[in-house]
Amino acid sequence: MGEISSCSNGINSGNNINGVHGNGNSIVGGYRKSCWYEEEIEENLRWCFALNSILHTGSTQYQEIQLLDTKPFGKALVIDGKLQSAEIDEFIYHESLVHPALLHHPNPKAIFIMGGGEGSTARELLRHNTVVKVVMCDIDEEVVDFCKSYLVVNREAFCDPRLELIINDARAELEGRDESYDVIVGDLADPIAGGPCYKLYTKSFYESVVKPRLNQGGIFVTQAGPAGVFSHTEVFSCIYNTLRQVFKYVVPYSAHIPSYADIWGWIMASDSPFVVSADELDLRMKQRIKGENRYLDGKTFTSNSTLSKAVRKSLDNETHVYTEKSARFIYGHGTAYKHNQD
Amino acid sequence: MGEISSCSNGINSGNNINGVHGNGNSIVGGYRKSCWYEEEIEENLRWCFALNSILHTGSTQYQEIQLLDTKPFGKALVIDGKLQSAEIDEFIYHESLVHPALLHHPNPKAIFIMGGGEGSTARELLRHNTVVKVVMCDIDEEVVDFCKSYLVVNREAFCDPRLELIINDARAELEGRDESYDVIVGDLADPIAGGPCYKLYTKSFYESVVKPRLNQGGIFVTQAGPAGVFSHTEVFSCIYNTLRQVFKYVVPYSAHIPSYADIWGWIMASDSPFVVSADELDLRMKQRIKGENRYLDGKTFTSNSTLSKAVRKSLDNETHVYTEKSARFIYGHGTAYKHNQD
Amino acid sequence: MGEISSCSNGINSGNNINGVHGNGNSIVGGYRKSCWYEEEIEENLRWCFALNSILHTGSTQYQEIQLLDTKPFGKALVIDGKLQSAEIDEFIYHESLVHPALLHHPNPKAIFIMGGGEGSTARELLRHNTVVKVVMCDIDEEVVDFCKSYLVVNREAFCDPRLELIINDARAELEGRDESYDVIVGDLADPIAGGPCYKLYTKSFYESVVKPRLNQGGIFVTQAGPAGVFSHTEVFSCIYNTLRQVFKYVVPYSAHIPSYADIWGWIMASDSPFVVSADELDLRMKQRIKGENRYLDGKTFTSNSTLSKAVRKSLDNETHVYTEKSARFIYGHGTAYKHNQD
Amino acid sequence: MGEISSCSNGINSGNNINGVHGNGNSIVGGYRKSCWYEEEIEENLRWCFALNSILHTGSTQYQEIQLLDTKPFGKALVIDGKLQSAEIDEFIYHESLVHPALLHHPNPKAIFIMGGGEGSTARELLRHNTVVKVVMCDIDEEVVDFCKSYLVVNREAFCDPRLELIINDARAELEGRDESYDVIVGDLADPIAGGPCYKLYTKSFYESVVKPRLNQGGIFVTQAGPAGVFSHTEVFSCIYNTLRQVFKYVVPYSAHIPSYADIWGWIMASDSPFVVSADELDLRMKQRIKGENRYLDGKTFTSNSTLSKAVRKSLDNETHVYTEKSARFIYGHGTAYKHNQD
Repeated sequence: MGEISSCSNGINSGNNINGVHGNGNSIVGGYRKSCWYEEEIEENLRWCFALNSILHTGSTQYQEIQLLDTKPFGKALVIDGKLQSAEIDEFIYHESLVHPALLHHPNPKAIFIMGGGEGSTARELLRHNTVVKVVMCDIDEEVVDFCKSYLVVNREAFCDPRLELIINDARAELEGRDESYDVIVGDLADPIAGGPCYKLYTKSFYESVVKPRLNQGGIFVTQAGPAGVFSHTEVFSCIYNTLRQVFKYVVPYSAHIPSYADIWGWIMASDSPFVVSADELDLRMKQRIKGENRYLDGKTFTSNSTLSKAVRKSLDNETHVYTEKSARFIYGHGTAYKHNQD
Repeated sequence: MGEISSCSNGINSGNNINGVHGNGNSIVGGYRKSCWYEEEIEENLRWCFALNSILHTGSTQYQEIQLLDTKPFGKALVIDGKLQSAEIDEFIYHESLVHPALLHHPNPKAIFIMGGGEGSTARELLRHNTVVKVVMCDIDEEVVDFCKSYLVVNREAFCDPRLELIINDARAELEGRDESYDVIVGDLADPIAGGPCYKLYTKSFYESVVKPRLNQGGIFVTQAGPAGVFSHTEVFSCIYNTLRQVFKYVVPYSAHIPSYADIWGWIMASDSPFVVSADELDLRMKQRIKGENRYLDGKTFTSNSTLSKAVRKSLDNETHVYTEKSARFIYGHGTAYKHNQD
Repeated sequence: MGEISSCSNGINSGNNINGVHGNGNSIVGGYRKSCWYEEEIEENLRWCFALNSILHTGSTQYQEIQLLDTKPFGKALVIDGKLQSAEIDEFIYHESLVHPALLHHPNPKAIFIMGGGEGSTARELLRHNTVVKVVMCDIDEEVVDFCKSYLVVNREAFCDPRLELIINDARAELEGRDESYDVIVGDLADPIAGGPCYKLYTKSFYESVVKPRLNQGGIFVTQAGPAGVFSHTEVFSCIYNTLRQVFKYVVPYSAHIPSYADIWGWIMASDSPFVVSADELDLRMKQRIKGENRYLDGKTFTSNSTLSKAVRKSLDNETHVYTEKSARFIYGHGTAYKHNQD
Repeated sequence: MGEISSCSNGINSGNNINGVHGNGNSIVGGYRKSCWYEEEIEENLRWCFALNSILHTGSTQYQEIQLLDTKPFGKALVIDGKLQSAEIDEFIYHESLVHPALLHHPNPKAIFIMGGGEGSTARELLRHNTVVKVVMCDIDEEVVDFCKSYLVVNREAFCDPRLELIINDARAELEGRDESYDVIVGDLADPIAGGPCYKLYTKSFYESVVKPRLNQGGIFVTQAGPAGVFSHTEVFSCIYNTLRQVFKYVVPYSAHIPSYADIWGWIMASDSPFVVSADELDLRMKQRIKGENRYLDGKTFTSNSTLSKAVRKSLDNETHVYTEKSARFIYGHGTAYKHNQD
């Protein structure tokens, strides 16, 4: 064996990816799967996917990035060693992040996304016919460019004239803008100490930056980390309690994301009450959203916003509030954290 | 290195287990975890727990059995290479299996458990003050004896005079008995072809064995396999559809079990309607159940019995019915299956 | 996330492989390696390499084939789930297979390779200036074509006019040919029951097919499987004992191949004695071989053909002879074996 | 499931270990192995053994210690996450460390072991009938006590009246002693920066501490880390070159240790020449050593002390010398290293 030819045909061509797929699927597989992606969900817990191929590996100014083709979950975007989004179930995450907030608002026109570089959040927002403007502000231009190029499912969204794409720190951008929004969406990386995002989960940020940029009746919604029976204490309950200090009405909800091996959480917050029934949600979906949701409808939201006894109790009793000095973090970003602490 | 002394003190004694624990916890852990339990949830998907120790490995007439001490989920019972039950979250499974059916029944006195050798199902049943008799019928005496000896949390249940423990095939036992029951609970291994249980998930079994042994207003409830957005098509939807052929009222519900890395499903069925409100469930819990549930209350059940749009749609459209000739199976038991097919 | 664009630039292009490499190397790697190739050397023993990329996955008429870019061993060719050859250490295997036999022969002109589709064996043979003809006979055209295209290091060999490449079963080819050879080289897959090669390791094959095709003074050499202190009993000692039944002089030797995680064995056999000293081997290398060996010289061969006490003893005592009815096999091909037996 | 009974019989008793073994072996094993020990040999390379049980986990003042029962290699002692010694092949390491030096010495009576807490080095030394005194000096009393209690194969050695066991730093001990030795054996952990041993591999240590404590004609021998075609550059070549600065005659040799997944190296050094033939080695073994070696004899040593061309060349060209300021380290102890650097 030796150096691979740089001029050979076939293996390096566009056929490669399909080829891998095609052949991969046709392997009747007498032998065990031999190539695996492995993620340490916690220090003592691993989650491993058989691989078809490694489509891309690289690093940007801010993050390490991998695009993998996995057997159980399709294409998967991995940032800093953590799965961000998998082809076959990202619709659960993105429908859950976007639609409850927009449907609870009477007429959402102007939207601001903090993060969201993958483009899927914009895609779901732009399905709403009430929306006239979406500002998407992500700090990492290379990730955005990467997703723009490779994620065909979001290509239309990236080209939508209603989308204004900004490369900047979301805090700086929100502070620098005069206009305000009907819905602000937090689609940020989890609050990693030392990461680009942890300051965007604090009480002072919500109070002095987010809330002033919401229109009357405006809604803030954020992804809020794992929300399982045990894992919700990592960040979900704290984000909930922090938002409770700032907004009058706060609605936590959650859904199982198979590729995350856990329940995931989101939280809506507003100074106006959330009073839309399941039937009304279904009706608004029909009136406002282009195409049909795969995961979310009124009943699903009712179910997902009714947390289990164990989680409800724990949220009620949470006393921790995120401030710049007292962040609480989820596992896995420990590496970055430690590096910065060293 | 060489043969381990058989007479040395300490390592082989009862102190061992505590010792492992004690020391294990005190390791500040500069280096990575090196001992792992690994389960293939599907052919392309693995779930791995760091290990404190392997408490027992053995095989019975019917099954391979392991008792592990895992770091993320505590003690874990593994049968035929599949995690059955983990110390820290088995309450979710067993509260979900037992309480909804008993609470929907006006006055459940006589209960029959198919399987349940671990003892946790009996433990939850015996918390109900209405219950006067629990017949628990498991085929594997060695597993029952093993759990009796080692699972302290179920010791009281195994000694409860209301419990009648039978070692037999559940079908044969039910057929041979004259008495009937208010609730019959299916706590069986998943429907493995070639395994001991798949005949206990068929239409004919439900029709000619289970239903005749239910009293007027009686309820049948069974664990029903994975119930995630994708995994519910493995067996959950078919068990649901099969029960729908036999009973007038069928209620599927589900909950996330962290150690299973998935949503799990259960199904209640009866010829009497299920008409108890969340508040009434809470009230009955207070009146009938000794101690407090950790996971389940009225709201939790409301949420868990409201399935997501994707799952609901798929259950509505399911046409497959389990018969002895047309079983459908979940992954992992494929080995046993293949062995028997060869 | 979603479908990958088929028209996007960059990722699918020739730059991909270099890109992966380039970027991969530049990752300073705060986080753990997440993509792994995993091989079960034995049922209870695994050997895992971090992956840069999966260059190709496919299946031919005979075999599953993968070309991986691994971090510890460079490009690696994997056939039927077993590592065949790794970029950084294949020279140890191929120098050991080829040069001892050719150097012990006074004037090797005509060579026949059974198998060897990768091309590296031919490459080493063609470095000998005495060689006028190399017949390479491999059964799997697709593997040969694949290696021809991608293994730059063997490209010159594949184009050498002295090489005659035949796609056929080696036994049929040898039986059908009239000409005979100075050296016959067995570069076959390990003797897998049910695989294409196990009949090429039997006493009757050596006696009635190989020996008649050797010229006077001719030498047969074959790769002979793992040859470690324990692993040599899998097939090495049996191939040795089988050859001992057929040839007057038999020389087993071995070398450590890092990517195999084991010592590997080869066996030379002839009816003429092997009487070349280490110094004479060094001299002949200078005279006959183009370029310099990286691994093998006279002293190395002396060392490698002096087996350890444990292995020598075991070879002396081996009584098993390979016949078509009594093959003995190495682990890992068990799957194919079982499939064929079912 | 729940807390394990502390009073139950069987599982916690001495029968446990045998029981696990007994049952483990009787598992016909339709399903895959699920419990694994995993070692990162290098950052990009893993070596994994299926586990029967975890016999002990603990930490001493100096090190983390595990005693595992592995399927491929029997009981295995793991210190700081690195396999030290496995039941089925430790004889290769210890015969190679001890016998060449003692057999090259005309009449070795007094021996000093630096490290060797496991007891196997003493065991091999005490097989020599010339030996009247063995001083074994290990820094970690708990490891010594642990091995004394559990390693039956070394029990006789630990009780031999010729053995003097000292708990101390080997350097301090050697410096503090007046007596000198015929052979000094270095059975130390690999040279980890920040570990207890790296100062025991330096030129100044050899010159001012070891050499002055050797009798006329005395021999120093040390384990010298991995010695594979690639891995010998980690520490083997440097230890070799360092010893070459201090002693007139230096003999490197190596052997494959299956459980290490690599060739291992040892180096003998003396100011007297090493001139014993293979036959004479065999004769001395018969005369001096009680019982028969399993691995080593004269021919084996001849082979093992004839390194391959690649390694020889690299050793010849090595210029690095270990000093307290310029240590070079092997992988895996990086953790300890980093901790100390932080």
